[in-house]
Amino acid sequence: MTFPNVINDLITYFERLPGVGSKTAQRLVFYLLSFPDRELKDFGKLLADLKDRTQLCEVCKNISEGPLCKICEDTSREKNQILVVASPLDVVALEKTDYKGTYHVLHGLIDPLSYIGPDDIYLADLLNRVENLVREGASPVEVVLATNAGMEGESTANYISDMLHEKGYNCKQVKITRIGRGLPVGGDIEYADDNTLSRAMDGRKEIS
Amino acid sequence: MTFPNVINDLITYFERLPGVGSKTAQRLVFYLLSFPDRELKDFGKLLADLKDRTQLCEVCKNISEGPLCKICEDTSREKNQILVVASPLDVVALEKTDYKGTYHVLHGLIDPLSYIGPDDIYLADLLNRVENLVREGASPVEVVLATNAGMEGESTANYISDMLHEKGYNCKQVKITRIGRGLPVGGDIEYADDNTLSRAMDGRKEIS
Repeated sequence: MTFPNVINDLITYFERLPGVGSKTAQRLVFYLLSFPDRELKDFGKLLADLKDRTQLCEVCKNISEGPLCKICEDTSREKNQILVVASPLDVVALEKTDYKGTYHVLHGLIDPLSYIGPDDIYLADLLNRVENLVREGASPVEVVLATNAGMEGESTANYISDMLHEKGYNCKQVKITRIGRGLPVGGDIEYADDNTLSRAMDGRKEIS
Repeated sequence: MTFPNVINDLITYFERLPGVGSKTAQRLVFYLLSFPDRELKDFGKLLADLKDRTQLCEVCKNISEGPLCKICEDTSREKNQILVVASPLDVVALEKTDYKGTYHVLHGLIDPLSYIGPDDIYLADLLNRVENLVREGASPVEVVLATNAGMEGESTANYISDMLHEKGYNCKQVKITRIGRGLPVGGDIEYADDNTLSRAMDGRKEIS
């Protein structure tokens, strides 16, 4: 079946999106034909402008409109607490909690099998940031590691931890923590996998 | 969580696509940030140009680049056989078979609950098309109804059938057929629903 070229080309772009197969891409593009022309032009312009109208925050590397993201601009946030995540979407999820510190977005995880090394993600920027904060003194800097529990997430967390330990900071300067692991709220022990259960046992707390 | 405006606006557009919820829309837009700027501009331009670069085929109302679609332009296709479908995606599916006739795309089905009446879909064009073919004479025109088996599809098929019968064509002029219903190839009787089984019994054929 031969579609007009513009439709074929659009299908190819949609197919490149995560979770979109060729049938879905076709359905999406044909659905777009029901949009008014004005909206399609607006949608298209937003896509074309996406990179021009966004940048990485100079401090935390989150997606931002200006040189600083809204979180780093906010003076009420605890600048000495840095939550390290792999992607901007993790920030979206964590911002639904009452966390009041800042973030550092790595934009990836160390993954030798995909040729992603420490220099390919924003690790040097994290180290600089911690160094600057330590130099400024005052309260200890807390680096909270919140990379996923998979192999890449664990090795990235270990790498960051080693990297910071090598600097020889004492516990009054830098504190490295890892986000809590265990049973999710509403999760049944019966259905939890063994890794989660082991982590939940390791992370048990005394009831005060 | 406040995203840059361009991201919020793009998420809103993606959320309007079928099967895309708010989480998926976020994921898609953040994924798009990994595209090179050149490709995003190209993708955006295709979207903006979608309506300008497509039109409905003058004959069959399928999506087309020029005034006539590739199928209607093709002189080897049997012009006297018209397969009536609800959407251009149905044409895509049927073109994978060895069907050699033409199509008529209604762009919808009669659905009073959604205020879609016979005048809101391309029924008048179908009637004109049949009338012109009958006037030109020669072999009988076959109208194959291939709307879905749901309520809207059935009532649209009945409407078309009544509309053509009212014109008083004899069987040498117009033949109205309906696409076969029954067990899909590879389908088990055990798992088939009762409607499909009834249709399969009605549509049984003598083995020659």
